[in-house]
Formats: sequence, C-alpha cells, structure tokens
Amino acid sequence: MIKIGIVGGSGYTGGELIRLLLGHPEAEIAIVTSRRLSGTPVTDIHGHLSGLFDLTFENPSPEEIASACDLVITAVPHGAAMGIVPKLLESGTRVVDLSADYRLPVAVFEATYARAHTDPGRVGGEVDDQGAVFGLPELHPEVAGARFIANPGCYPTGAILSAAPLADAKMVEYAIFDSKSGVSGAGVEPSDTSHYPNLAENIRAYNITTHRHLPEIVQELGRLDGSLTSIHFTPHVIPAIRGILTTAHLLLHEGCDSGPSSDYDTILELYREFYKDKPFVRVRDYIPNLADVRGSNFCDIGLAFRDNRVVVVSAIDNLVKGASGQAIQNMNLMFGLPETCGLLTPPLSP
Amino acid sequence: MIKIGIVGGSGYTGGELIRLLLGHPEAEIAIVTSRRLSGTPVTDIHGHLSGLFDLTFENPSPEEIASACDLVITAVPHGAAMGIVPKLLESGTRVVDLSADYRLPVAVFEATYARAHTDPGRVGGEVDDQGAVFGLPELHPEVAGARFIANPGCYPTGAILSAAPLADAKMVEYAIFDSKSGVSGAGVEPSDTSHYPNLAENIRAYNITTHRHLPEIVQELGRLDGSLTSIHFTPHVIPAIRGILTTAHLLLHEGCDSGPSSDYDTILELYREFYKDKPFVRVRDYIPNLADVRGSNFCDIGLAFRDNRVVVVSAIDNLVKGASGQAIQNMNLMFGLPETCGLLTPPLSP
Amino acid sequence: MIKIGIVGGSGYTGGELIRLLLGHPEAEIAIVTSRRLSGTPVTDIHGHLSGLFDLTFENPSPEEIASACDLVITAVPHGAAMGIVPKLLESGTRVVDLSADYRLPVAVFEATYARAHTDPGRVGGEVDDQGAVFGLPELHPEVAGARFIANPGCYPTGAILSAAPLADAKMVEYAIFDSKSGVSGAGVEPSDTSHYPNLAENIRAYNITTHRHLPEIVQELGRLDGSLTSIHFTPHVIPAIRGILTTAHLLLHEGCDSGPSSDYDTILELYREFYKDKPFVRVRDYIPNLADVRGSNFCDIGLAFRDNRVVVVSAIDNLVKGASGQAIQNMNLMFGLPETCGLLTPPLSP
Amino acid sequence: MIKIGIVGGSGYTGGELIRLLLGHPEAEIAIVTSRRLSGTPVTDIHGHLSGLFDLTFENPSPEEIASACDLVITAVPHGAAMGIVPKLLESGTRVVDLSADYRLPVAVFEATYARAHTDPGRVGGEVDDQGAVFGLPELHPEVAGARFIANPGCYPTGAILSAAPLADAKMVEYAIFDSKSGVSGAGVEPSDTSHYPNLAENIRAYNITTHRHLPEIVQELGRLDGSLTSIHFTPHVIPAIRGILTTAHLLLHEGCDSGPSSDYDTILELYREFYKDKPFVRVRDYIPNLADVRGSNFCDIGLAFRDNRVVVVSAIDNLVKGASGQAIQNMNLMFGLPETCGLLTPPLSP
Repeated sequence: MIKIGIVGGSGYTGGELIRLLLGHPEAEIAIVTSRRLSGTPVTDIHGHLSGLFDLTFENPSPEEIASACDLVITAVPHGAAMGIVPKLLESGTRVVDLSADYRLPVAVFEATYARAHTDPGRVGGEVDDQGAVFGLPELHPEVAGARFIANPGCYPTGAILSAAPLADAKMVEYAIFDSKSGVSGAGVEPSDTSHYPNLAENIRAYNITTHRHLPEIVQELGRLDGSLTSIHFTPHVIPAIRGILTTAHLLLHEGCDSGPSSDYDTILELYREFYKDKPFVRVRDYIPNLADVRGSNFCDIGLAFRDNRVVVVSAIDNLVKGASGQAIQNMNLMFGLPETCGLLTPPLSP
Repeated sequence: MIKIGIVGGSGYTGGELIRLLLGHPEAEIAIVTSRRLSGTPVTDIHGHLSGLFDLTFENPSPEEIASACDLVITAVPHGAAMGIVPKLLESGTRVVDLSADYRLPVAVFEATYARAHTDPGRVGGEVDDQGAVFGLPELHPEVAGARFIANPGCYPTGAILSAAPLADAKMVEYAIFDSKSGVSGAGVEPSDTSHYPNLAENIRAYNITTHRHLPEIVQELGRLDGSLTSIHFTPHVIPAIRGILTTAHLLLHEGCDSGPSSDYDTILELYREFYKDKPFVRVRDYIPNLADVRGSNFCDIGLAFRDNRVVVVSAIDNLVKGASGQAIQNMNLMFGLPETCGLLTPPLSP
Repeated sequence: MIKIGIVGGSGYTGGELIRLLLGHPEAEIAIVTSRRLSGTPVTDIHGHLSGLFDLTFENPSPEEIASACDLVITAVPHGAAMGIVPKLLESGTRVVDLSADYRLPVAVFEATYARAHTDPGRVGGEVDDQGAVFGLPELHPEVAGARFIANPGCYPTGAILSAAPLADAKMVEYAIFDSKSGVSGAGVEPSDTSHYPNLAENIRAYNITTHRHLPEIVQELGRLDGSLTSIHFTPHVIPAIRGILTTAHLLLHEGCDSGPSSDYDTILELYREFYKDKPFVRVRDYIPNLADVRGSNFCDIGLAFRDNRVVVVSAIDNLVKGASGQAIQNMNLMFGLPETCGLLTPPLSP
Repeated sequence: MIKIGIVGGSGYTGGELIRLLLGHPEAEIAIVTSRRLSGTPVTDIHGHLSGLFDLTFENPSPEEIASACDLVITAVPHGAAMGIVPKLLESGTRVVDLSADYRLPVAVFEATYARAHTDPGRVGGEVDDQGAVFGLPELHPEVAGARFIANPGCYPTGAILSAAPLADAKMVEYAIFDSKSGVSGAGVEPSDTSHYPNLAENIRAYNITTHRHLPEIVQELGRLDGSLTSIHFTPHVIPAIRGILTTAHLLLHEGCDSGPSSDYDTILELYREFYKDKPFVRVRDYIPNLADVRGSNFCDIGLAFRDNRVVVVSAIDNLVKGASGQAIQNMNLMFGLPETCGLLTPPLSP
C-alpha cells in the first residue's frame, strides 16, 4: 500500500482526496495535517465522511511527514507550498503539489502571483530529478517517472484539454476560452462571491482579461504549437457547487476550413484519435454538461464546427479532474499503477 | 410628501425600503444613514438602484435626522435601536423600528436576547403616546394612531397570520410552526450559512426548539387566545434568496373536528371573513408558494383539514411583508393614507 | 458473483442501481430492461456512465430474466410491478420491488392507490416463503431470509427511522412529519413541479394531509407501538435534486418530559443504542443536512428536546437510502453478505 | 389612457406585460386573449397577480380586438403572428409583435425558421406605413413614428447593445457573443431543458453555432458597420429563472489597440457617449450581473480591454428588456410618451 500524506487537509480539495482515496485499493492515508485544527478528528470538519475515516488532524514537521509517507499531496495556499515542498523532497518522499507555485517559469510565476519564488531551482527540473513536472497526464507522459508533480489549475485543465488536439495539429490561429465554474473553486471560506444571495439566480464574470490561470493555458498550448500566442481567457462563476464548463471558441487558420479537416466528423475523429489512450477523456457526439462528470475524474468533450470557428465544450469536476482526482491520477502513474486504479468512481447524476 | 429617514440603510432592508419608497406617491426619502459608509453614494452599495436614486449615505445626529424627517425607519441591529430610538422620538419625529428591541416585554426581551434593555419605559406604551405598538397591522388597529411602531420579525409575521383566525376562534390546542426561509434574512454579510456550497441543494434546520422569534409568536397568538400556550417553532433555511413559507400544523381542541367548523369550506370561510378587510392577506383556494408573493407585500394563505389537524401554509417575502414593506404599510396607516398606498407592487413571477 | 437483473432501468433509480452496483465486489448486472428503449445502449440514456457500463436495454420475458439472474430489482411504476413480480418469483429468482405494490395490506393499498391488487396472496407472506417483507433492514431482520422484498418509499424511510427509537420506547403520543424532498423523487419526466422556474427560489407544500406514503409510516410505527395512531405527514418539494430532510415533531406522552428520559443526552443515547448495530444510520450530535448524505446510503439523525416535544431531523438521499441503495442493502442481507458490502460509497460534499 | 390588447396572454411574456402595465399611468389593459383559456380569469393562470387584475381571458376576432384597442401586443408563437398581425393592422390598430415573424428579411426568415412567410409585404415596410420597424429603440429612432414594431429577440437585445458602440465606430473585426440565459426564455411548458434535475448545478451549451437569433445580431450590427460580418453566437442555459448575461469578445481591427481608443477609459467613454440619451442603458464602471437588472427594463454594460480584445458584458432581464418591457418602451415612443413612462420599476435585488 502506498502511504499518503495530505498536507492542508481541511479544505475542499483535502476532503475530496480523502473521499477518493477511501476507495483506492493500493493507497492508504497515513497523515492529514492542519496547523489550525491539529488534534481535531478529521470528520469533525468533513462530517460527511463520519464513520468512514478515523484519523485526526496533526501538525508534524515535514521530515516526520516524509518519513511516514511514500507520497505527500500538498493542498496549501499559493506561496505556502514552496515553503514546505523542498523539505519534503529532500527528505526523500514524492510530492504532488496542488498549488500554483511550481506550474510556471519563475519569471511568469512572479509576475502573475506578485511574489518572489523562494525555490526557483525546482521549477523546470533543474534540481536533478526533483524538478516539477506539469501534472496534466494526457499531455505529459513524463509524469510516469516523476518524483514531483505540479498539479495544474482547474480552469487550465478544462481549457487545455478542450483545445489540445487542434493546437497539436497547428490549426488554431486564435483561441478564446469562456469558462463557467462552480463556486467551490473559491474554497471553504465564505465571501461576497460565495454569498448565496449574490450567486443564486445569477452569473458573474470576473477578471475577464486578467485571470491568473491564463499563463498556464498559454504555456501548455504553446508547447503544442509554438506559433499559437493569441489566447484569451474569461472566467465566470455560476450557481453551481462543482464543475467547470469551458466553451472554447477556436478560430482556425485560413484554409483549415476548406481542407480535409473541414467537416465535423473529421474534427471529431481528430479528437478521438488524440485521446484514444486517455481513459479519463471522453469525446462525445453531443455537447456535454456538468452532470455528466459530477464527482468523477472524467473530462467530457463535445464540439461543433461552422465557417472557420470550432466551438469545443469541455466539462470537468473542478475538485476532481481539476484538483484532487488529477492528483491521484498522477500518483497512479508515478507509482506504476494503472492510470485508472481506484479512480473510476461513476459520476453522480442526476 | 412625508419625509422619510432611513437609519442604517446599507443592508437588505435598507435597499428594499428605498426600492419600495421610490414608487410611493406620498413619501420621499430625505436621509439615508450609515456610519461606515458616510459620504458614499447609496447606489455604490445598492447598485441595482443606479440612476433611480441620488442620495449619499450620511451620518447625522439623531436630532438632525428627526428635524429633517416626518418618519424615521431604523434598520439597525438588535440592541442598537434602543440607543437611538429614544432620541428620535424625543426630538419629535415618528419611528418604525425594524429591530427586535421593542417587540417584547422587557423581561422576555432580556431573556431572549441576553442583554439588558436600556429603554424599558417605551415597551408597552408607558411613556405617554410613545410606547411601542406591535406593528402587525392586520391584528393591531392601534397602529393607525401610533407614533412608534415595533415592526415584527419576519418569521412571526408569517406564522402569526397563518394561525390567527383559528386562534381567535379559540379552536387551537397545539400549534407547531415549521418554517422555511430564504437566506436573505441573515443579511448581507457572508457566513457559513449563506456560503453557496453549504446551502445550494440543501436545507438546514437550525435553532430547532430555541429560535428567538418564538416569543413574538407566543405573545401575539396569546393575545387572541389566552389559553393557547402550546406553541412550537422550528425554522429552516432553504436555497432561496427571498421568502418564508410557514407550514402551520394546528391541532384543534377535541370536538372542533366534529362540529360546524369541521369541514374545509367552513375553515376557509373563517379565514376569508377574518381577513376580509386586510388587503395584503390573500386567502387562496390552493396552497401558495414563494413565487406568488416574491417582491411584494402580500401574505398568501392556503390550507387543508384532516382529522383534528388543520395544516395552514402561509407565504411571504421576508424582506417585504416580513420587514420593509410592512414598515411602509405601518407608515401609511400612521399618516392616514390608504393602507395600500404605493405598496401594491405586483409580485415578480416567475 | 450475484447476477442482477434490473427491470425498468431507464429512470433515476435504474441509473442509481447501475452506479452503485458498478462498485459492488460480489454482484454484477446481467440484464437491464426497458420496453421502450430495447436495443439502445444503456449509456445513451445514462450518459454519465459512458465508458463504465456496456449493456444494452433488452426486453426479455420474465422467465428469461429469472433464468439469467439470481436477483431481480423491479423499478417499474406502481401497479406494473404486480404484473411481473409473480412470474419472476415463480420462475425461481429473488426479487426486490421498488414500487408500492407490496408494501401495504391489500385493503390499504387499494384505498391508497385506487386500484385493485391482482396478487394479494404475496402481500403479507401468505404464499409460502414468497410473501413480501418490508425492506427497511434496520427494523426488519427477517430481510435476511427473504426471497421477496417490498422496498419502502423514500419519505417513509426517512420518517420511520427518525421516530422509531422513541416509538419503540412507547413514548410518542403525537407525531408530525414535515418532510422536504429534492425533486428527483418525481422522476425523469418533466412536469410543472420540476419546471425550473416553478421550483427554483421556492418551496412547495403538496398533498399536505393526503400523501400516499402516510400509510407506510403509520404501519411501521404501529408495529413498534400499537397505541401510536396520531401520525401526520406533510411533504414539500425544495430546490434540490436529491435528498429528503424530515423534521419530525414528536409530542411525548405526559410524564415523559419529567422522567428519566427527559434530557437531551438520555434521548440521544436512546437513539444511539437503538441503532448501534445499524451501519447506515449515523446518530449525530448536531442537526444533519442533505450534504452529509448526498449520494450515499446513510441516514443521518440529530435531535433537540424542549418541553414535551422532541424534534428529530433525519437526512437521506432519496435515490440511495430512499430507493436504490436500500435495495442493494437488502440484497446484501438476502445473500448473506455483510450489510455494507460495496455500499460504503462516501457522500459527495460539497 | 392607451387601451392595450394582449394577444396570447397566458405565457411568461403575457404575465410580464400585465405586471408592468399595472403600474403604467397612461395605459390600461382592455383585452387579454387566449384561445385555450377563454373564460378563465387571468389570475387563475397568473396567480401572483391575484387581487390586482380582474380581466378574464377572451377569444375575440382580430377585428374586435382592433376596435377595442389602441395598441395590440402579440405574444404568440413564431409563425402564428403573421396570421393575425395583418388583420389587426388593417383594422386600424397599432401592433407590437413579440414573435420573430417580422424581424428579418423574408429570405433570411424563411431559411432560419424553415417556413414560408405569408405576409412578406410588411417586412421591410413595403406596405405604406405598416411595415415592421425593428423595435430596439436605442438604435432605431424611427420607432417613434411607427404603427408596427417587430420586437427583437432576447439574446439579440443583449448582444447588439453590448457591441453597438464599437461597431458604430467601425472598430470590430471579429465578434463572438457567448451568452448565458435563464430558462424562462424557453417558456412555461416543462421540457427536458427546464427539468430541475437537468438544469440545477449545471450549465448547458446548445445550438452552439446555429441558434436562430444569430441573423438578428448580424443584421443589426451590419447596419452599423457593413464590413462587420464575422459574427458568432453561442448560447447557454444557466440555473436561473430570469436574465441574460452576454460576454462579448470583440477583436478589434489591427491598429485599434494602439491608437487613441486604446485604453479602457477611452472605450468606456465611447460607450457612455453612445448611450448618453438612452435611459435604459446603464454603462457601469464594473462588470454587471443579473441581479443588477432583475425585473427591470435596464441593460447594464461593463467592459475590460486587453491587447486587441475588448470584453464587454451586458446584463438584461430576458422577460423585460428582452421582451415585455421593451414592448412597452416601444409603446411609449409610438404614442409620444416619455420613453421611461411607467417603466422605471426598480430591479429586485437581492
């Protein structure tokens, strides 16, 4: 059994890690940490798991965590991860980090998150084998050999997967990602955004040209097509707890709409071929929605084509494929397990 | 024109007072106060009223407010009202207070709200004509001559009106009010209760035997039937912004179910007769719901009868009939206007 | 492996049976029937299960179903079950029926559902060992030896479990169940009730004294306390997909509030003792809500006590503990498996 | 008083026409028709208006309607309007038609709605003064002299207003409208789309390249800038009863991002100038949302600017500015009343 440590387990991603790992046949949770809640039974916070999980929040040192765990998943705020990840790695354990700290080149990170990076060497893999691998397994086979994964952001996961096949085919000239997210992505702390009277019967566009997840999208699509730089991203919060629906408006290069890729079937086939060995991406012949994937690690994709615009719609559960589920998918690959091991929890629908 | 002051105008009840008074032909708002926001345009906070309302939040003394206003509506927290109401009344203006400070006898208030009452003389009308009248106009005709109104709580408004006709007929032995409220009653400040992931797709029972609105219900039904003391109240929060649906389970005295009042039509007629001159109570021949009254000052009532139990369902908008609208209804009566003046805003449905 | 047939698999309960059985280590689905959809892949209808389940809807005869299955779960409308269940049982398979056809004595059924019973012999167990057992395992240990189970209604499951310990202690004089249900209980077919503009931001009381689930509640509590006949039930639909919260207002016999059972701790202990060996009932020290049980087979219970009234709140997922999950719980017991086998799916929260 | 006839008054737009006209000082409703419901009191269907409105649904001939009314508002399905509008106009009354029948050139209409046009002469104003004027008053001053108005679709209203100032300035090269609508636009009839379990906690993209409202958007923006033809439209349904939020991604011509219009303030000022005399368009310095306009005739607009992309967000109530309110706005102008007469109903927020 792989022994798992969860650092920062009191939030939604912590709860989801526990929920999902409870059904994993090859992993068991050894430690769940919380500075604030040390000594409190985990199910006092995650009440829905009562009777299913017995651990108590602890607050051990990174070294103690590392010595007790084969893998540590860090679910701490941006900026906090780079304070603990080096100690964990240096103590010999493996790490999947859910924060943004290791996803971007240092300069981009510092510009985007307005803080200095204190562990720049591990970004980009310069410290031997401990450099961070961007943990989107569908695009990064090197996850399999990694000791340290930077788990992608929730929006980037849905956006990148929606456009990757066309980007890989060098067909996209201009990409606009218009995303609609459930509010759990904002965390457990009440805020004006999550205040029910502000969100119910409503939808809110925010950071409409400046959201911090844009650089991840640019980076990953740029790896597939270096000439694709016109990428825009506008997020919205909708009255939903879970899920991100991304509507990708992809304008194709001139000529792409009149060549062999010009019909719906051809483009759908391009997607099917691209994702044929990716068990968590389901290319659909209809437009998927959030209920198709709720609670599961799937990313469902559907599309339409008109003139030179392909509209691709992807649906994920932001807490699963957008965070905790993807972390476990990465874990499976890191430890040589089948990618889907313990992770085929069916979606909850209706 | 009646000049109105709103003390504490930054919350939901403040916004609703402005929304409703904008359509009132005989009243105009002279002052809106907020200590915290003094100097800020009101529509910076109540953005939906932009272009319709020009005042800026001020922070004048009670005396200044009183000298500028014919009526002051105080929308401040429990405990704060008794600090300002005396000064307003002594300066010669009239007052409708939305807080709980003057609704209950001093001893009951102090036990319920766990604080000392600093203005006990005005509770129960001992200070000349300045004693508080309980502002439920359907039961308190003395509102018409009052200078000071204690506006009822939102839950009590719906609960009392659902049971008053049967209580007045001395038919009720046992009353259980099971109420379901939208979350706007908890105010504009985000909290765990109003956090969307906690409330959506959910319902929460709270203070299930101990809610502070119970004494108001007991007091008012007790005025109609002194022997009716078995009164219970359990509130819930539902995924709705506005509205309170109260399901009143009224167990009748033995014999009531076999006499002349034993059939549905007779009891419905009892309700219609009781409320025949009350323009804001609509007795329905079906079970009403929140959409029937959303945004309006109506209280809709429907019922069913079986064995010795009458089940009455009342629907109100908690921010209107349960607060700001009822305050204006009281104002109309205090100033000799028709009860419905400027207050027949149609409900918003769907 | 236990081979399972699902008769009438296109609705929500069918989808849930598949979702839950996909994770069951000792059962596999052999047949899913639908007259209307025969020949259609099951995942064309239950799209969320795409990639996880390969069967196609079929329309075989009852005899064919019986010969291929160790257990058949019938998820067909009230009145239709009694047309197929006899053939299934006579062909030698076991049956769990989700309909109301076999839950009540014939006379009560016929009065409640306004139709003649065509298989009266199996109600009450008069046909050898093929008589229906009421499948609420927490109260009916005889489920373990049964060949035919009448699975309870969703509302009765939550209501009965909320009151059973006090009823068993002969303490209840009067019981009022005020229940609030998600709308999935009304099925997959769109209706005025499920029309989003009618349900969102709303709550609807319906059949407030006459709901057809009342006789099940009366029957089961009556088994525990023959003198308890004053039982009332009022259902509501709330803006939620899943879940039933039942607020049980239990008026105790005179004296019960002053004796040894008069305090909260004693009553809570009574509940804990009653359910100590029931793995799916979680007695909580707070008031549970729907998120605590969403997607799971748990029934969570919390309570408060004041004067002579105990208010008990139970929360279930109506499609799981209120239908498909309970069917699998019954299956586990019928086949000698651990009661929780394959059924400890953690709740989905948030 | 202007006498109004409402043809087809049983749906949501009919209910809204009545709600809004109840507060109009210069108009009164003379007739409300419904073939199916003739003889039924209007408030049996629009229960929320009980006590406020006394008419009964009728089924008179077009001539009878015309003789009793100064203006008839037709709220009937697409295709049905062209069967009744000619008779109304020929009988001498004026008409505002809410259907799509007269919004588009005949050929475009027939291609889009897949039916022949039976009254082609009135499209484009070929029948004297009875030709249809596209009733978006902010762009069509000729509404003031019109006898016949084709009221725009709900999506086009929000989309066109979001882009008109930049289109009028000939700055837009490519326009993508990503719209999110409440479900009331789909009408009162329950459907799979409006089924609560399908819509709650979800969002659905539909007709993502083919929606029938696209030609209206193309037509109206083309009037402002004949060279602007790259226009795309993707609608979504969100869990909301009312409202449409349109996120307009407007790619500017090369050079527009480096000239005098290149900063946020300049573009905001362009919008303010364009709408300075349009009382129902509120240009905001933040991103508006649906609560800002709920129940009102306002269209709120906010925007951001980055590189060569302007993202404009507009919010309307689809039943008011997107249908019934705009019809009354047109009426006011047709009859020489102030544009806002009776139509400044404040939004309902929260």
